[in-house]
Amino acid sequence: MQKKNRQVLLVKRPTGIPQAGDFEIAETGLPETGAGSFLVRNIYLSVDPAQRGWAAQEANYSNPVPLGEPMRALTIGRVVESDDPDIEAGELLYGWFGWQDYCLATRDQILRRIPRDDIPLSANASLLGINGLTAYLALTGLGRPREGETLLVSTAAGSVGSFAGQIGRIHGCRTLGLTGDASKVQRCMERYGYDRAWNYRETDIARLLADEGPIDIYYDNVGGSILDAAVRQMRLGGRIIQCGTASIASWDPAPQGPRPEREVLTRRLSWHGFVIFDHIARFPEAAAALSQWWREGRLTFDEDIESGIEAAPGAIAALYAGANSGKKLIQIAEA
Amino acid sequence: MQKKNRQVLLVKRPTGIPQAGDFEIAETGLPETGAGSFLVRNIYLSVDPAQRGWAAQEANYSNPVPLGEPMRALTIGRVVESDDPDIEAGELLYGWFGWQDYCLATRDQILRRIPRDDIPLSANASLLGINGLTAYLALTGLGRPREGETLLVSTAAGSVGSFAGQIGRIHGCRTLGLTGDASKVQRCMERYGYDRAWNYRETDIARLLADEGPIDIYYDNVGGSILDAAVRQMRLGGRIIQCGTASIASWDPAPQGPRPEREVLTRRLSWHGFVIFDHIARFPEAAAALSQWWREGRLTFDEDIESGIEAAPGAIAALYAGANSGKKLIQIAEA
Repeated sequence: MQKKNRQVLLVKRPTGIPQAGDFEIAETGLPETGAGSFLVRNIYLSVDPAQRGWAAQEANYSNPVPLGEPMRALTIGRVVESDDPDIEAGELLYGWFGWQDYCLATRDQILRRIPRDDIPLSANASLLGINGLTAYLALTGLGRPREGETLLVSTAAGSVGSFAGQIGRIHGCRTLGLTGDASKVQRCMERYGYDRAWNYRETDIARLLADEGPIDIYYDNVGGSILDAAVRQMRLGGRIIQCGTASIASWDPAPQGPRPEREVLTRRLSWHGFVIFDHIARFPEAAAALSQWWREGRLTFDEDIESGIEAAPGAIAALYAGANSGKKLIQIAEA
Repeated sequence: MQKKNRQVLLVKRPTGIPQAGDFEIAETGLPETGAGSFLVRNIYLSVDPAQRGWAAQEANYSNPVPLGEPMRALTIGRVVESDDPDIEAGELLYGWFGWQDYCLATRDQILRRIPRDDIPLSANASLLGINGLTAYLALTGLGRPREGETLLVSTAAGSVGSFAGQIGRIHGCRTLGLTGDASKVQRCMERYGYDRAWNYRETDIARLLADEGPIDIYYDNVGGSILDAAVRQMRLGGRIIQCGTASIASWDPAPQGPRPEREVLTRRLSWHGFVIFDHIARFPEAAAALSQWWREGRLTFDEDIESGIEAAPGAIAALYAGANSGKKLIQIAEA
């Protein structure tokens, strides 16, 4: 066993999107387990858009990651030592173990215990990770997709959007995707089964949606001007799922936009915020549905896996630049 | 029977709030009933904030009132002649009979048939009119008030807000009211049972709500800067009911405000638009609950009744100026 623990520490408070220079890789000794704790060897580090919020000065739905601490992250790891009678060495876990080789953890850091089944290990951080779980629980719970409805998804080829589009299609929706370059438009159509997809950078979104709407469900990962256009093309009784605000670089000072309250009123919209960590009790149900659709060939997913912990510091910025093709993971040990 | 029918015609397209000069009172002959129609003698004309939207150039949830036609309005009237086998002369109705003495109507214009019971006739356009029905159905259906929660209401002494506050209190909420002058603050506290009430014109709303929040339910009739402040003081999982946008004088050009999507996301808000006419099937249930609370002395209401059709043209502007104290009605015939 490796005697050192490499950790990706947050050393500067990012302004906006965290950059490589906001992190440092440091080495410490291996922590020792004590009663009720266990030691996890991380295998896959997850890179998620939500990490921007976790690293920001202003708390959003969680407290900011303290400076000098390992970056908060979900990972897949294997238990190598355990002083918790319920957790065995060798068990695989998906949880809050951070960007580091090893994590001394307790049970509350586990998000999902990974069964030994036919699902590829890395897929427990993509298909069955917060990405797939988010798309499933937000779209089915708040979007309530029905046969023949029109579903619009932003970041349509992304790690959440690609699932949202496919799950909408499984429910019989016409699916429209907005994404950020031509290759992603192609992936939307060829891999994720969107009926139509566009590069938002080359499209007059307001006109496009006026032609393609009205929209029954808008699964929004970006906020900003795409949201402004979508709000104005919703059908009566339409549902907006606010799952991210990736297009807004900074909230200080508060960015301005056209007021939505008239549209909310006259179109009888329901506009919901969704944060996956409110819904942990429903993970088993969601994972079962996603696994079944995958086994039936009705749901596909892509992963973009880099190697080595050195890839972590620049990974969030790369994600926001749209450089990945599939759920971004960093593999730091053999599965 | 009077041989002439006086009608309040919309003769100019209002910019913003309809003014007296946008209307003219004209006289025509009495219409004749034909098969399936009936003649209604209006008794009470309702004056509602929503009439601004109905008269506006831009369709909101209904087509604009055509120029030269009687102003669209709800009224209480008595059937004086009927060629509809299901409608009897003498029956009292609440419906779409417009600002005029008489209306030749068909059954689809009826919103609610008024039973002969212990409810005062005019209350069928206030307590049991769209005002009380709106507050009941929006607050219970979308707000889901629970014991001990905090409910904020704007236009808290108004014809909808006064019911929203009282219904919230009946459900065990702490009720906070915002209104536009000292006498209305007093009415909020003394008649509608608000726990606290303020004159928004003399209050730093953002600071007030930071002190009094977090807010579980915001029943919003105004939009604009009060909404902006409330969105930022909602509790996790809070519900916003968008029932009006009275503070916004014009939507062209689109007024700007601070973007709400981050708050919707991180506070997991549910922001709903509510238009009463989607919920006609539930009127009997709502009317029964409201009547019962009134009989039990748990729910009170105020009416501000003017006399004579000449009061109609200036009535919407007076309503927006906050000149009324209670649901504004105009009586044009003996009950």
